[in-house]
Amino acid sequence: MADGLNFSRRLRRTPYTDRAEAAGVRGFSVVNHMLLPKAYAGSVEEDYWHLRDHVQIWDVACQRQVEIAGPDAARLVQWMTPRDISHARVGDCLYVPVTDERAGMINDPVLLKLAEDRFWLSIADSDLLLYAKGLALGARLAVEVSEPDVSPLAVQGPKAEALLAGLFGDHVRGIGFFKFGWIDFDGTRQLIARSGYSRQGGFEIYLQGGHLGGALWDAVWEAGQAHDIAPGCPNLIERIEGGLLSYGNEMTRETTPLELGLGRFCLPGAADYLGRAALDRIAAEGVAREIRGVLFDGGPCPACAAPWPVRVGDRQVGQVTSAAWSPRLKRNVGLSLIDRGFWEAGQLVSVHSVDGLTRGGEVSALPFA
Amino acid sequence: MADGLNFSRRLRRTPYTDRAEAAGVRGFSVVNHMLLPKAYAGSVEEDYWHLRDHVQIWDVACQRQVEIAGPDAARLVQWMTPRDISHARVGDCLYVPVTDERAGMINDPVLLKLAEDRFWLSIADSDLLLYAKGLALGARLAVEVSEPDVSPLAVQGPKAEALLAGLFGDHVRGIGFFKFGWIDFDGTRQLIARSGYSRQGGFEIYLQGGHLGGALWDAVWEAGQAHDIAPGCPNLIERIEGGLLSYGNEMTRETTPLELGLGRFCLPGAADYLGRAALDRIAAEGVAREIRGVLFDGGPCPACAAPWPVRVGDRQVGQVTSAAWSPRLKRNVGLSLIDRGFWEAGQLVSVHSVDGLTRGGEVSALPFA
Repeated sequence: MADGLNFSRRLRRTPYTDRAEAAGVRGFSVVNHMLLPKAYAGSVEEDYWHLRDHVQIWDVACQRQVEIAGPDAARLVQWMTPRDISHARVGDCLYVPVTDERAGMINDPVLLKLAEDRFWLSIADSDLLLYAKGLALGARLAVEVSEPDVSPLAVQGPKAEALLAGLFGDHVRGIGFFKFGWIDFDGTRQLIARSGYSRQGGFEIYLQGGHLGGALWDAVWEAGQAHDIAPGCPNLIERIEGGLLSYGNEMTRETTPLELGLGRFCLPGAADYLGRAALDRIAAEGVAREIRGVLFDGGPCPACAAPWPVRVGDRQVGQVTSAAWSPRLKRNVGLSLIDRGFWEAGQLVSVHSVDGLTRGGEVSALPFA
Repeated sequence: MADGLNFSRRLRRTPYTDRAEAAGVRGFSVVNHMLLPKAYAGSVEEDYWHLRDHVQIWDVACQRQVEIAGPDAARLVQWMTPRDISHARVGDCLYVPVTDERAGMINDPVLLKLAEDRFWLSIADSDLLLYAKGLALGARLAVEVSEPDVSPLAVQGPKAEALLAGLFGDHVRGIGFFKFGWIDFDGTRQLIARSGYSRQGGFEIYLQGGHLGGALWDAVWEAGQAHDIAPGCPNLIERIEGGLLSYGNEMTRETTPLELGLGRFCLPGAADYLGRAALDRIAAEGVAREIRGVLFDGGPCPACAAPWPVRVGDRQVGQVTSAAWSPRLKRNVGLSLIDRGFWEAGQLVSVHSVDGLTRGGEVSALPFA
């Protein structure tokens, strides 16, 4: 087993971990108390090019589902998010910022509407179940909050559709972006969504029944042989270039959705929710910092394990929270909340990386070109 | 940086991580979205003997504090736990199971009463802050729930008292077990408790102000030179032998405090709390399984990364959730919830470890002799 991470039951294995190990996984991260593969045989650059050209299979079972079901389910979900969910239909996936009473980010899950009174929140790395449960118990709502036996498997990249249509039927091609449908697998009916943590297109299969994990991985893997499939994982370069944010990195409870460029999901008056008064006030005042890209020089940067100051002259105007060398842009790309007055694209800055270098750079719009 | 765990801001460094790295840390675990050192130069057996004989410095900043303050603080804390906190005094530490409405374990923190209206919950690995916050918002309680800038540093082992009395003054000797007092450090007043995640005695300094972390580590390290100090971390062998439970390993939301032998903290009628009806019913019915030790043979066992079946004949009567080779007992020691009818000490069982071996063993009381 890999050095560096000590394993215990507390860091849960997934229904796919055996397969990931057989496929040569070289390291894990931990998300929602569960293992997330982080590297296989190739370098992060090799995986980046492969993901853009072919198709990959990702163990993202760590995207746990928080199921909210019962008469007050829609009421509880709406209470947790500034996004108006009243027009959502069964079969829709919605990216929903979840905020607290100060409009701080608690999580940024994808909401799946399974029925008028039943939802899944496919969560980033915080125990959203405990927040939902606390709210429901505190307000005595008629809901059940639970973590069902659901383990997403992502199939990402431009060849994902052809692979999955071949394996599960052509109706998969008709599933719209951020919509879900159903496939038959091994005598079971399984949810499949056109979604995923990349900008290269693809699907996520929300497998119900962990005992089917190995068989599902094998079926996708076998069908993928004709499409140059490789084992993979969310790719740091690709997600930064695409401006995909990461809870715990770009945002914490100290960050508001408006700072993250999520204002289109927080239209004033569209919905009543917990942080509404705070968010309306912030919207009226205007934000003091906002998410941007930063392009910077000095050769490939090290891993960004703690924030790096972004400066204009001697003044700190932000901090890089995720960074990687882009082999396509031939510069480093980073994500940073940048102070008002300095966030225009082209603003010259310096980035102070952990290796002690002062790297010249500039602010960029997101996603990177 | 160590292989096996990919680092990012999301896996937070602590105020002591730089020092742990300088001291040769070889691996980390992740607890509460924060790094926990798991190994230094020595083997887990060498560290075990050292901890029993000398003194160690542990970075346990991942024991985050959930601060609950305000007029309704005591009410919220009592609502979350079966343990009667009405008699607690300022300066007390209390181990408090936190349960949900079904009496399932949400966390098992240590409660520190700082004032009549201000508490810290020093938490195990789940986002108890989100649960407390949800309850408070849902029930509209007059409390503030926050994570203050507090980073516990543990000094554990039989020489801890001499070390800390020499460094901070003889009054440290007067602090009772599971009580806290105060020390002066670098012009600041800091909380120190006689507590820690070992049975070898020791203290935890709840450092307020992360910028002081390096200086505190250095001061303890320097004073420790006369006491054979070594860098360390919670020791798997020692904690299993001592019957210290681990949230996520021995317990989840599917486990009740009664199954964990925590009935003395759940006296019926002593307090009103969220899971009371469920727990009273379970207490009346009697539990169907209860925590026990398991001693088993077959040479040193591998790491227990997923539960191992415990059987009597062909019948599964439990599963081992933590296990290690005890160099003192010359057998493997494990922790397991064991079914009623099979939980008497001396009951012969077999343990089916991940390496495919069937290991003969027996049920034991806790702590192990």
